[in-house]
Amino acid sequence: MLAYVLRMSSLFVKTLRENPSDAEVASHQLLVRGGYIRRAAPGVYTWLPLGLKVLRKVEAVVREEMERAGAQEVHFPALLPKEPYEASNRWNDYGPILFKLKDRRGNDYLLAPTHEEMFTLLVKDLYSSYKDLPLMLYQIQTKYRDEARPRAGLIRGREFIMKDSYSFDIDDEGLDVSYQSMRDAYEAIFTRLDLPYVICSAMSGAMGGSRSEEFLHPTAIGEDTFVRSAGGYAANAEAVVTPTPAEIDFSDTPPAELIHTPDAKTIAALVDSLSERAPREGGWSAADTLKNVVITATHPDGERELIVIGLPGDREVDLKRVEAALSPAEIDVAGPEDIAKHPELVPGYIGPRAIGPNAGEDHVRYLLDPHVARGSAWVAGGDKDEHHVINLVYGRDFEADGTIEAAEVRAGDEAPDGSGPLELARGIEIGHIFQLGRPYAEALGLSVLDENGKSRVVTMGSYGIGVSRVMAALAEKNHDDKGLVWPIGVAPAHLHILATGKSADILETAERLGTALHSAGFEVLLDDRKKVSAGVKFADYELLGLPYGLVVGRGLKDGKVELRNRATGESTEIAVTDAIQVITDTLRQALADQPKAPGTE
Amino acid sequence: MLAYVLRMSSLFVKTLRENPSDAEVASHQLLVRGGYIRRAAPGVYTWLPLGLKVLRKVEAVVREEMERAGAQEVHFPALLPKEPYEASNRWNDYGPILFKLKDRRGNDYLLAPTHEEMFTLLVKDLYSSYKDLPLMLYQIQTKYRDEARPRAGLIRGREFIMKDSYSFDIDDEGLDVSYQSMRDAYEAIFTRLDLPYVICSAMSGAMGGSRSEEFLHPTAIGEDTFVRSAGGYAANAEAVVTPTPAEIDFSDTPPAELIHTPDAKTIAALVDSLSERAPREGGWSAADTLKNVVITATHPDGERELIVIGLPGDREVDLKRVEAALSPAEIDVAGPEDIAKHPELVPGYIGPRAIGPNAGEDHVRYLLDPHVARGSAWVAGGDKDEHHVINLVYGRDFEADGTIEAAEVRAGDEAPDGSGPLELARGIEIGHIFQLGRPYAEALGLSVLDENGKSRVVTMGSYGIGVSRVMAALAEKNHDDKGLVWPIGVAPAHLHILATGKSADILETAERLGTALHSAGFEVLLDDRKKVSAGVKFADYELLGLPYGLVVGRGLKDGKVELRNRATGESTEIAVTDAIQVITDTLRQALADQPKAPGTE
Repeated sequence: MLAYVLRMSSLFVKTLRENPSDAEVASHQLLVRGGYIRRAAPGVYTWLPLGLKVLRKVEAVVREEMERAGAQEVHFPALLPKEPYEASNRWNDYGPILFKLKDRRGNDYLLAPTHEEMFTLLVKDLYSSYKDLPLMLYQIQTKYRDEARPRAGLIRGREFIMKDSYSFDIDDEGLDVSYQSMRDAYEAIFTRLDLPYVICSAMSGAMGGSRSEEFLHPTAIGEDTFVRSAGGYAANAEAVVTPTPAEIDFSDTPPAELIHTPDAKTIAALVDSLSERAPREGGWSAADTLKNVVITATHPDGERELIVIGLPGDREVDLKRVEAALSPAEIDVAGPEDIAKHPELVPGYIGPRAIGPNAGEDHVRYLLDPHVARGSAWVAGGDKDEHHVINLVYGRDFEADGTIEAAEVRAGDEAPDGSGPLELARGIEIGHIFQLGRPYAEALGLSVLDENGKSRVVTMGSYGIGVSRVMAALAEKNHDDKGLVWPIGVAPAHLHILATGKSADILETAERLGTALHSAGFEVLLDDRKKVSAGVKFADYELLGLPYGLVVGRGLKDGKVELRNRATGESTEIAVTDAIQVITDTLRQALADQPKAPGTE
Repeated sequence: MLAYVLRMSSLFVKTLRENPSDAEVASHQLLVRGGYIRRAAPGVYTWLPLGLKVLRKVEAVVREEMERAGAQEVHFPALLPKEPYEASNRWNDYGPILFKLKDRRGNDYLLAPTHEEMFTLLVKDLYSSYKDLPLMLYQIQTKYRDEARPRAGLIRGREFIMKDSYSFDIDDEGLDVSYQSMRDAYEAIFTRLDLPYVICSAMSGAMGGSRSEEFLHPTAIGEDTFVRSAGGYAANAEAVVTPTPAEIDFSDTPPAELIHTPDAKTIAALVDSLSERAPREGGWSAADTLKNVVITATHPDGERELIVIGLPGDREVDLKRVEAALSPAEIDVAGPEDIAKHPELVPGYIGPRAIGPNAGEDHVRYLLDPHVARGSAWVAGGDKDEHHVINLVYGRDFEADGTIEAAEVRAGDEAPDGSGPLELARGIEIGHIFQLGRPYAEALGLSVLDENGKSRVVTMGSYGIGVSRVMAALAEKNHDDKGLVWPIGVAPAHLHILATGKSADILETAERLGTALHSAGFEVLLDDRKKVSAGVKFADYELLGLPYGLVVGRGLKDGKVELRNRATGESTEIAVTDAIQVITDTLRQALADQPKAPGTE
């Protein structure tokens, strides 16, 4: 509850009519224009009074559901010593995303991107028996990640607010129960916030662990691509596993043959060239060619490795899938100078025989996308200018160092679980849950004694919600071309009263209604500004996006005021004498109509 | 309100019987032993569930009084770019206390020790007219200071929680009003928290500005020394201004005379030596000697300057006063190797004629304590081994480069305002309010247009409360030899129910009472642990320090339970059938009896 009626005449806000030049997505534009947040540095934002009120309401929903799930709130420092993160290898594995610093004595510190290590150590510090478990702890805390490309305001920041929780169990069954309780809590949170989500299988990335799922909010501005099938499969595109194709009998495949293919540096040109120089029944298509793409992987220790990835020529490499597969290395497309260092790589004609295990010691690593079946025959680069090879059989003519999920997932691809063709969509990651298992507990020595007095390594889970990002997702979902349209549960206030007009009784009436409704327990923002036109007040009402507006203006001389619904645009004229009752009923109903957590209705 | 009855069987807490080895003061010992906080690194603490609950209650009091004073809450990043702090010079002036770091692009950042610059820029960003003023903003936020000697747990940390507010006014009268409103709010906060305070005149230090006062909580473990007089004067010892003594007529003073004073390297030995070698009527005392103390001042740019300070031989140098006077330099006593670099400084016989303006260019800077009156005659070092000079007159025989408040303040010294002799005491700084004036607005270009359309530089105030330190001060004030004794307003819960004994109805009754009292709106911690002895439960009750305990134990078979008052130790037997009513009345009364802010009763 607000302590007093907010007044536009004194509220620390200044609305902007123009979009900030660095803002591309609506939520970012509108949160800045509405005076909710303000940029302090790239990916670092200040919370203004209205923004802080929304954030606190989102936090309150998260906190309530955490408490209901039996999680206990603690609060860790953001400034942490290096040692625990060295023990888990993340001091290095996180790479440049970690903000590092030294104190006055020269000791190494970091600004925590997430707190697995510290939670592990804390539980180790206080607990020692199976009787203390299961345990679920959480915090809502400021996190730091030095993103290479902070973007979209609160959606990808370098300082951001996260709810992170951690579970501690004696065995895998316990972890399953804890994991499910957090999964349920997340469903409750996003349901209450009315934020649609898809639970996707996900990669664990730098977190490690065995199982993880992401809560993605579907939106065109999302930076994650996910897939789903009608049969219920859903996964982050990074996590889609290509089914291993059956091995192909190549006994009838003719031997490999070198073909002169001038001007065939692209797949399309190659297909044309083959049709002319090596015509065959059924012709040639891009799917017959083996595309070899050279990338660089920069490992956490700074080593920069050249890798060649082979995949069917009709598919593109998805660098995010590659990066997920090679985590924690950072991935980039190799440049001409990288390739020039390896004379065996003939630009435009790189073939699988010059690399990988075929090429002896010190060879460039060669990884094949799983779409390339063992025994299948391919057209590939001939390792010689203007030449390709046909009938090159994987397993007969060349080998690879391993497989890698590299090819883009396409709409229409079969779901890995056989549940039908996939469709693609974009989303924002609003939550991520991990079954970490025992790696952190092992690295940091967290064991407890079991019922038989035996030492058992604790198994852990880790569960995150990007609270500030969720607020941005809410702004993104709830806006129109005029401004924000907050759901009543997270709006900075319930009612926006506009005093429009110069007669003294207009402001007096607006004040009286505002005070009465505040006393009745509602949150009221009163636009009491003198010398500000009605047009500006209406524009601010639409931009700020409180769920209801009450216009006290010209109609007052006839005893009327006007109640507006920001979301529907509906406007109702009501007698000023009925106003308090009507608005009370309307707001009560709106508050009561909010989505409830499953099972609590 | 707590969402549910806390249970010792599941609460994340482990009480310790032994004091942590690094803890010297009671609040630190008890907060760690009671499972309120846990050390994560030197001066960096994790908040455990109980500690977080207390902290949130302290924050709530601060927040309520800020809102009542019309301050609006915002929230700034902790990670800030260098540039604004360069503009104010604090990037350098703060010296090693500032945590600095670089991002992945090599840009400089800091972890904010306080936010004057950012608030100034934010207001500049949004406001431009006198009509927008006055404005009062605040935040409750995590701050970072790389203290050389973090100590006493939460009392001096490197990561800590602070409420900082900032006022913006068009003129000095406005600043006075804003300053007074924060001063009143601070009185309200500390009154409500029942934390005694003395408002002391203070030095502004690295903050700059014209007027500042500290709220010191008197306690023997305080690291600040303050003085007060019966007449109402109070000041931090650092801020005590020595009245300038009247100039003395030296026309009758004989000329300076060199005296052989072997073995007179101490003041006491010198007095003895003089009594023998230069006897005079009335004899010699330490107060007749001019002590010259060599210090080093390390300036923010790293320059290490040697300075000699002259003061009466019967007074000691107070290095904290010197440091405050020479801020932002860091001060230390000079070592033999520093002194050896200056052959004109004869160890044990340093005199004022070899230094200061008397010594020509490139001289060592010489500063005099204001107790040394112009025209007064002194015994001082003769700049020659085993020799002193007598009848050395300030203004005749030597000069100084300036004055410095260097001598310790002593009990019995006169208050500068003539309000009587001073007494000394120790305290913890729990609040500090500053009239900053215009330096930040000038450095960062914050002006607004006044009524006549003229640009006016805004005048500012800055107001801080160490919220986590206040919690430590509360723990320090409210404890006994058995543990903490929280006031009901900040206790993690209102009532601690102890189920002591093995019969099933004991736990059942405890559960029933706990649930009923929780439903009645009280915060309940229930010690429901099985296989834990009554003795351990009593010890934990005393250590954790909730204001009331309810023992459900042996008496239950006679229909009795026992209500304990943690502070008074009082114990009352009550019929279990009356328990809910009696406890409800007791807790309601205790909540109602809490101190109120002045003027709100």
